Amino acid sequence: MQLSRPTVVQGFRELEREGWIVSHVGRGSFVAERAGEALAGELRPTVRMPAGPSADHEALQKLFQLRLSHMASFDSLARPRPGAKIVDLRSGSPALPGLGKELLADLARRAVDRFGLALGQYSFQGLPELKTAMAARLTAGGCKLSADQLLVTHGAQDAITFLGIWATHTSRRVFCESPTFWGVPHALSFCGHFVRNVYWHDRADALDELEREAARGPMLLYACADFQNPTGLCLDAATRRRIAKIARMHDMVVAVDDINRDLRFTGEQETSLYEMLPENRRILVTSLSKSVMPGLRVGFMAADPGLLTEISEIKRYTDLGGPPLMQAIAADFLENEYDAHLARVRDHYRLRCEAVCETLSEHLPRDGRFVRPDGGFHMWVELPPGTSSMELYRLALEKNIAISPGPLHDLDGRFGNCLRVSYAQASPNQITSAVEQLCKLIPHATSTDRPAHAAGSSV
Amino acid sequence: MQLSRPTVVQGFRELEREGWIVSHVGRGSFVAERAGEALAGELRPTVRMPAGPSADHEALQKLFQLRLSHMASFDSLARPRPGAKIVDLRSGSPALPGLGKELLADLARRAVDRFGLALGQYSFQGLPELKTAMAARLTAGGCKLSADQLLVTHGAQDAITFLGIWATHTSRRVFCESPTFWGVPHALSFCGHFVRNVYWHDRADALDELEREAARGPMLLYACADFQNPTGLCLDAATRRRIAKIARMHDMVVAVDDINRDLRFTGEQETSLYEMLPENRRILVTSLSKSVMPGLRVGFMAADPGLLTEISEIKRYTDLGGPPLMQAIAADFLENEYDAHLARVRDHYRLRCEAVCETLSEHLPRDGRFVRPDGGFHMWVELPPGTSSMELYRLALEKNIAISPGPLHDLDGRFGNCLRVSYAQASPNQITSAVEQLCKLIPHATSTDRPAHAAGSSV
Repeated sequence: MQLSRPTVVQGFRELEREGWIVSHVGRGSFVAERAGEALAGELRPTVRMPAGPSADHEALQKLFQLRLSHMASFDSLARPRPGAKIVDLRSGSPALPGLGKELLADLARRAVDRFGLALGQYSFQGLPELKTAMAARLTAGGCKLSADQLLVTHGAQDAITFLGIWATHTSRRVFCESPTFWGVPHALSFCGHFVRNVYWHDRADALDELEREAARGPMLLYACADFQNPTGLCLDAATRRRIAKIARMHDMVVAVDDINRDLRFTGEQETSLYEMLPENRRILVTSLSKSVMPGLRVGFMAADPGLLTEISEIKRYTDLGGPPLMQAIAADFLENEYDAHLARVRDHYRLRCEAVCETLSEHLPRDGRFVRPDGGFHMWVELPPGTSSMELYRLALEKNIAISPGPLHDLDGRFGNCLRVSYAQASPNQITSAVEQLCKLIPHATSTDRPAHAAGSSV
Repeated sequence: MQLSRPTVVQGFRELEREGWIVSHVGRGSFVAERAGEALAGELRPTVRMPAGPSADHEALQKLFQLRLSHMASFDSLARPRPGAKIVDLRSGSPALPGLGKELLADLARRAVDRFGLALGQYSFQGLPELKTAMAARLTAGGCKLSADQLLVTHGAQDAITFLGIWATHTSRRVFCESPTFWGVPHALSFCGHFVRNVYWHDRADALDELEREAARGPMLLYACADFQNPTGLCLDAATRRRIAKIARMHDMVVAVDDINRDLRFTGEQETSLYEMLPENRRILVTSLSKSVMPGLRVGFMAADPGLLTEISEIKRYTDLGGPPLMQAIAADFLENEYDAHLARVRDHYRLRCEAVCETLSEHLPRDGRFVRPDGGFHMWVELPPGTSSMELYRLALEKNIAISPGPLHDLDGRFGNCLRVSYAQASPNQITSAVEQLCKLIPHATSTDRPAHAAGSSV
């Protein structure tokens, strides 16, 4: 379906009217290249709630619907022209350097030779060989876990949805860091939760607020501490310690998402947040989708024995296990291919990250800022105040460049002046050229009022 | 872990005290071999609710916990002796006659040749080739569906859990036929629903009650119309028509579980319940786990365009798709192997079903009854009044025979005098001998009071 420009513009303007897209920011901005400083991304409140008792059920339902319609509207409005050759700085899929058809065929053949017809049956508990191999990897990476502490999932997203079900069943309030991968708060919302955002990097008092909330009753906090999507940042040591302290004092279970932890391409590994948390107040969520390949659909949850029992009880009723063939392939890969693959993939991302950062350093307008990541394949760019990343997205798409606008990474549509740049798919040369073009478009991506257009007729 | 007999007995007695296992039935019984007659399986109420307003939240929580602890207690108490050679009349896994390692390896190789590295990537929408092949199969089986009406899931259980999330999000009350596969109401409960049981075969007024409930507001009904687990029965034409009529009159969406529909080994296919239901009031749930093999972990949901849009929106946020390799294998199997496989597997089940039925006809005590299935690999046996299927389970396990007691198939522990016999795994000779032994144990499986035993010390 091809959309005319006026339709897209009008669609964006409707999102703006609904408060989903906010381009004016009401605070100062920074130019910095170092982690740990605050990220700007304010939501200009368009409507104030009347003071009074907490919102009723109908209002909450409305909030759910609005929060969840946001991404859907974006996806239906903003599509590349059919057939256009896009420089992809948007995709959340990892690169697969060195992975070929022959290796995939070999891995499948080896799996059948090793496990035979057991691959045709249910694998409720997950393949022991996979859990052993993964536990060894996690332990080597600083997260001491045994095979019997692992549950195999259909990827990290499946684990997050499961945690939403678990939190419903155990009556926990749900908190989620923001900005974040849209799939996380959306899945938790669909499970019936009013998801509260936690703005680590944007609010000096985020941790104080978290502590106050934790004192109010049982909660689940979702956090990706290493090379977080979308910012590429790691939580600093002080923040990790403070989170661990809150979890010790209150009934706050932290779901630590470590999907990108193995993708560090420079510097020393941070101490694992999971390791710092108190026993039975932590759940590890991870997968091989980012570090090996998404098509495996192999993810994991891990927890201490007490919490693990609680989770396992629910999991066996919601899911009859994953395909043992994929688990056997994953086990073999971890045992025999993973080290070489990680070396290749880290080089791949390091080179591309450098291309983005060098180009930004040269061309990003002075009031913009970014933080150079030490791993993963996403990074966050703050645009000068008054810039609209939605408008920039549209302008960039006209130049066949795809980026991911900031508001897609927050349930409440903040971060209108931010964008995610994902550098897994493009070549360093494509990146250099595309990022330079992007920077030149920034001054044109303002969100000042324009006359409304009529809807196009090509839909 | 080996359990001493006194421990197991005491465990069962605790379940009885909690009202989970009820062995005395308070109504007459039947001897019959024909479908369509009522199945006995009463819950003797041990506690009466005081008259008054509806239960408060805390009471509902308690109900959830008790309902869900039931299976867990059973599984921890009642395990075969380690190393014992069990004649398996309990497993819900299908038989895989004719499926060998070489075929599995071939299918994997063919999948890699056909799709290459696309198998390493996300497959959010599901492999088009799989959806095309499955839509053709479903249409040939009397369920007219196009490929674009199908969503690929990680098996039917995953689809059920998803429907639980969807019903939470859309504020639908949830109704589930009973007896049923335990995984269905448990998954729906974990999503936060107070699941109401619908007793098709056991209550003459079940359909009237369903209609009254449907008039009260939006609901989701789960029903497996063909070769239902655990009874092996098909819903008769009049019941199907009545369900369809209720769905036309009220906002009742019916999730039709067709996982066993292709496994008919005698007689003519019934009209698909899905086909009889009104548009946008029906969701098809099916999988290849029973008709091909569980290890594929390939299932499907299907719906009409309107409802499909609603479901797809939620699904893409809770799940990033299944492994394309398994989907490619499934597509190839459907295209090239399925017909021959179905012929083999139907013969396999028909022979075994005959072995069960012939032995029961000869040896089941006069007050017991059963209905001969026309397909699938489960059937339901009603024991004479006063017989406890839990006690029979324990006695049978001492003879190395595993069955599935009735109360495991009802959230509220009904069907204490019923059991499921599953005939996929054992040979006809094993079945004949085991069912004869079972029948001889029935008179000893009474639930009259015995002195309580002290807990054994071997746990």
